[in-house]
Formats: sequence, C-alpha cells, structure tokens
Amino acid sequence: MDATGFRRLWDQIAATGRADSGGYLRFSWSAADLALREWFDAQAAERGLRVESDRNGNRYAHWDAGTGPGVLTGSHFDSVPHGGAYDGPLGIVSAFLAVDELRASGFAPQRPIVIGAFTEEEGGRFGVPCLGSRLMAGVVDPDRARALTDPDGTTLAEAMRAAGADPDALGPDPERLASFAAFVELHVEQGRALEAPVGVASAIWPHGRWRMTFTGAGDHAGTTRIPDRRDPMLTFAFAVLAARKEARLAGGLATVGRVEAVPNATNAIASQVTAWLDSRAPDEAVLAEILSGFTAKVKDRAGRDGTGFTIAPESETPIVEFDPGLRDRIAALLGGAPVLPTGAGHDAGVLAAHVPTAMLFVRNPTGVSHAPGEGASDEDCAAGVDALAAVLRDLAC
Amino acid sequence: MDATGFRRLWDQIAATGRADSGGYLRFSWSAADLALREWFDAQAAERGLRVESDRNGNRYAHWDAGTGPGVLTGSHFDSVPHGGAYDGPLGIVSAFLAVDELRASGFAPQRPIVIGAFTEEEGGRFGVPCLGSRLMAGVVDPDRARALTDPDGTTLAEAMRAAGADPDALGPDPERLASFAAFVELHVEQGRALEAPVGVASAIWPHGRWRMTFTGAGDHAGTTRIPDRRDPMLTFAFAVLAARKEARLAGGLATVGRVEAVPNATNAIASQVTAWLDSRAPDEAVLAEILSGFTAKVKDRAGRDGTGFTIAPESETPIVEFDPGLRDRIAALLGGAPVLPTGAGHDAGVLAAHVPTAMLFVRNPTGVSHAPGEGASDEDCAAGVDALAAVLRDLAC
Repeated sequence: MDATGFRRLWDQIAATGRADSGGYLRFSWSAADLALREWFDAQAAERGLRVESDRNGNRYAHWDAGTGPGVLTGSHFDSVPHGGAYDGPLGIVSAFLAVDELRASGFAPQRPIVIGAFTEEEGGRFGVPCLGSRLMAGVVDPDRARALTDPDGTTLAEAMRAAGADPDALGPDPERLASFAAFVELHVEQGRALEAPVGVASAIWPHGRWRMTFTGAGDHAGTTRIPDRRDPMLTFAFAVLAARKEARLAGGLATVGRVEAVPNATNAIASQVTAWLDSRAPDEAVLAEILSGFTAKVKDRAGRDGTGFTIAPESETPIVEFDPGLRDRIAALLGGAPVLPTGAGHDAGVLAAHVPTAMLFVRNPTGVSHAPGEGASDEDCAAGVDALAAVLRDLAC
Repeated sequence: MDATGFRRLWDQIAATGRADSGGYLRFSWSAADLALREWFDAQAAERGLRVESDRNGNRYAHWDAGTGPGVLTGSHFDSVPHGGAYDGPLGIVSAFLAVDELRASGFAPQRPIVIGAFTEEEGGRFGVPCLGSRLMAGVVDPDRARALTDPDGTTLAEAMRAAGADPDALGPDPERLASFAAFVELHVEQGRALEAPVGVASAIWPHGRWRMTFTGAGDHAGTTRIPDRRDPMLTFAFAVLAARKEARLAGGLATVGRVEAVPNATNAIASQVTAWLDSRAPDEAVLAEILSGFTAKVKDRAGRDGTGFTIAPESETPIVEFDPGLRDRIAALLGGAPVLPTGAGHDAGVLAAHVPTAMLFVRNPTGVSHAPGEGASDEDCAAGVDALAAVLRDLAC
C-alpha cells in the first residue's frame, strides 16, 4: 500500500489521548481507551468483522472463514505516561489495513483471521505489564489483578466496572489460546537496531532486575577525614560505571535508573544507598556473565571503600525464543528481512509459550521509545502493512 | 583536675534528653532543654553567679568582678537528633569546673568571667544553625526567626512563649556583644585530627554547597543501544568519584550525600539527576581549586556521555580565621598545644566577627560526630577543664 493510505487511517486516532507534551495518555479503561475501543468496533463493523471481548477485557475482530484455529494479529492500544503514538496502536491499525489489502486482492482465507487488542500491555495504569495476556495465560492471579490500583487508588475491578466490563470474569482462558494457530504481532522497533523498513523478531532478551544495597557509616561531611570515611555513595558511583562497562564488553545492556540515599542530606555522608540494576542480554549466559563480572568488581571496590554491598534479584525473566520455523518462514517470505532480537517485553512474549508466535518490527529512525520522540515514517509503516498482509496470506491459506 | 571530678558533674546531665538510641534529643525550648537551663541556673546559684538571659534566649552566668568587658566562655546545650553527649554541653560543664578551679586556687579576676549557653546552635529543631548567636550578631532577621517551624509545625515564637520566653524581643544585640572582651568556646573535636588531649582552633574552613544538575535523554532501559544512550546517571557517578579525588589531591573534603533521579524507575534511563556537592578546605584558594578541577573534569565527562552538566552555588561561607594573637597566646600558654582547623560551624565562628574569639578542642578518639558514638575520655575532659581555667586566668587577670 502507499504511505497516503496508511496515513489516512492512522490520522483517525492521532488526537485520541494526546497530551500537551505531544505524548499520549492512553491508560487502560480510561476515556481515551474506551474511545479507541469504540473506534476498533467501528472499523470492524465497516469491514463486516465480528467483534468480541474475552473474559480478560482483550477485544477481537474476527474475519470468520474456513475451519480450525485462526491466525491472530494485533497489539495493544494503551500507552505509558506520555508515550509515543506507535507503540501498540501501529499493530492494530496495520492489521485492519492488511485485511483491506487481502480483500482487495480477492484472497479467501482457509481459516479465521483475528485482530486482537490486548489490555494493559504497558502496565502504565495498574503496574503489571502484559496484564491482559498474562491473565489469559494463567500467570497472573485474578484476585491479585482485581486488587491492583492505579495512582489515584482506583482498583482494576472498579475501573472495569465503570467501563461496563465484568472483573469477576478475569482468569485463565485456555480455550481462547487454543483457538489460535499462530500469533503475529507487528510493533514499532524500540531502538535503532533495524536499518531496513521491516524486520522479524528472533527473541526477547532475558532480563533481570536486582536490588543493590550499599552500606557505610553516616557521618559529618565537614569533620570526617577522608581516611576515616566509609561512604557508600562512592561504591554506588563505582557500580554505576562498572555496570555500563561490563554490559558494553559483554554485548548486553545494564542500566541504573533508580537510587535512594539515606539520610539524603547535603552535609551528611550517606549511611546507606539503595539502587536497582536492570540488565538484559542476547542470551542467559551473557546476562550471567555481566552480573558475575559486575558483582565481583563492586565487591572488590566495597572492600577498598570499607563499605558493604549486597545484590538480590527482584525479577529474572528467561529468554523468549520465538518459534524458529515461523520466524524463518516469515523472513524468507519477506525476501530475507533482517532478523533481530529485542530487549522489551510484549504480549507476543507471553503468548509464545502457548501459540506459535512471531513479531514484525517497523523501523524507528529516532530509536526513541516510551516518549513523544518515538517515530516511524509513513512509507515504512506502509511497508509494514504489506509485510503483515503477506504473512497473514501465507498463514491463512 | 582529676577525671573523677569531671565525671561527677558530667553525670548530672547524662540522662537528660537521652533517647533509646543512646543519642540525645535536646532540642531548643523542649522539655529537655528547659531541664538543662534549670540545671544551669542551679549550678550558677551554687557558685553565687548572677544568671541572666539576653533578648535572644541565650543564657549567661556572671562571675561579676573588676570592671570593663568580660571574658565569655561556654557553648550550647542543644543537640542534633540522636546526637552525641559532648557536642555543646562539654563547653558549659567545663566552664563551671574551670570557675571552681580558679576559685580553689584563690584567683581574683580583674574583669567579669561569663558562662554562656547559646540557643539552637545545631539548627536541630528550627533548621538554622547558630540561631542564637546569629540573631545577636544581627545576621538573621527576627521576623524570619519567629516564623521558623519545627517538624511538627510549631513556630519558634510559639515554642518560646510556651517556655515563658518573649519572642518579640528577638533581634540584634550590639550592647551584649560589646560587653565581651573575648570569647573562648571549648568543644569536643569532631574528627580524628587531634592526637593530643587538648588543641587550639586556627580557623573554620571555608565551606560551599553546590546544586548539580545532570541532564540526558530518558529512554527505555531494554531497547536503547549503548551508543544511542545519553544517560545522566553515568555522569553523576563520575562526578561522585571525581569530587572525592579532587578533594583528596588538594587536601580538602568533598561529599555527595544527596541525590534525586527522574523518573527514578528501575527500567528507565534517567532523564535527569540532581545532586548536591558539599566541599570544605583549609583555605579559599584550595576550595576554589577543588571546585574548578572538579567542574572541568565533570564537564569533560558530560561531553563524552552526551549529557548536560550545570553547577550552581547554594551557599558559600568564607573562612573564619580566629584571632591570631589570641590563638598564639593560648597555644603558648598550654605548652605548645596543637593548632588545628575544623570543618564544622560554631557560635564562635559567628562571634569571631565581633569579639576576639578562640576555641579549645578536646580529643575525640572515635572521630564520630552528631551520632551516639561521639566520645571523649574523662581524662581528656579533665585536661580540657585545666586548659580552659588557665586561659580564663590569663585573659581575666
């Protein structure tokens, strides 16, 4: 399709949930989210697609055809606070356009094609990413989900009821999962790793978050001589730089973005610094290598600083390898499209444990993600629609 | 005097305001402070000294003798939260014991000897250190002082009225200042720099506090490639280590004890880090050298990190040089006692602009300050009393 055709549909949702920052506030079950769901229903109606919600608030538009399990595509509407326009909605808009392309070419699917819109993928309102797909997969307890609160103290159950949905229905949905023969999620790339218009995901990198505690001796910043100090801020500072260095040498990522000092006073040597390490890598061996190299170097430094250092995991997510057969088939179909991993989580990563799953990425020239600067050219988005249509044709014939 | 004699008087106030932490909660105008003022009055009465408060709530016990301006000694009763026993009260207890020594020796002063107890030296309740002496010196506005609040929201004016004092009287007191020919404050040393029982202060180091802002690009910790990052946490970490190194090489102190990251999220590269630098040095040239070396190195690093760095002063306190004639006279009188600077502020630092002022330090074996571990041996404290008595004899004869 051409860039103009993409832009025409894309512009229909451009104003929905847009903030003065230029970013989006599209929190699940908010007014903006309900407006996007209405738009979804209208798009389905225009195309004669049957609309249905599942028990977890995920919404589907069915192109009923043939027999047996269907081919699922789509993504999510919700955003992080002041997030970009593309992360999520691009996969849904592209799905409707791909259906249009298939129909215009006279294609008659031999199995259902289903467009899905997952709920609370970002965790931007209730704090648990991929909540809709995780509930479906049975890896989040429904009682816990119902009690999750947003920053205003509203529970998910209250927000769902206010939107006319039924929180008592939340729970595992193996029948829904079994109704899909494959899932293909199209998504904007979130870094600058993709240099072609469209790529195919190989895997979601393994990911860990660790809590680090640096302890020392709180003391007077004006009277404690340097040799008498045991300042945990120094060990923390070393750790920030060591994390970057270990990740760079090993070919992974490591970030320290959160820090809390005690007593956090200008004229006091800190008695304790707590900070969090986020690290991701192409495989679990590299992730382990980063962590062990990092830990050894920081322990050594703590010994020299006279401080204490402990590190404990808060979450460790193993690698998600997308279905290799599906991945290779799609890459070949797209004329040898680049195959690349991602460091971000997706509903596709959750469903991959249950359904043969693939992801298509559309190039992001800025590499910005979760911020207004996120982008993709209309030409690349149109190429994404063409690629998705080709994949759906291949899987549904 | 002997250690037992010191201990006997010292123990009279050991329980007053003591917390379960082993530290002290002796906030100005609190019940503990009022109990200490009562004790002060009783000690004065036992010795036939005339007690008087000034308009700013500082209290004095006068050994009226001779004519002309008097010799002031003493310190403060108030503590930081959970502070040590010695910081402040040691100077007051030692003053009463020095008067006892002078009287026992039959000494007849030729001018008044005055024991002072200053109010809110620590700023532990109302946030402004040396409040009593600064009000007297006219460098704190009385309206501002009356409106200062403690953590419970009680104003200084309310706290004074509840204690029977008159906040409307607060203000500059040049007549009181003119009534002192000299001020000698005895204080526990706050680091481990003093290796003899008693030393003499040369100066209070110049001191600056600067606010540092590190800016970068907030981004996704899982998808932003290392070369695409502009992470201000890295520049901040470098700055922490650079501050220590510059201070060490120049012979001063530099501390980063306070830090705030935005958005302070585990999975986000920070968009901004704000932190505060506290630096002190033997003289203003060294302080300037630390600051300029530090700033140049951090700017260079920010250039390499692709981040922004600004640094702006929040307070800059020049050096306080104690009266050199008085200092040398006292050091010689004490048989060549060590002369050393301090990095901490004192009422003596405020009065030094108006009255020839000196400080005596008593050795602190732990070097701990503003914490329960602060200490001094009874023997060293007794040596401090002897030294103070010798100095008062010399100045009042």
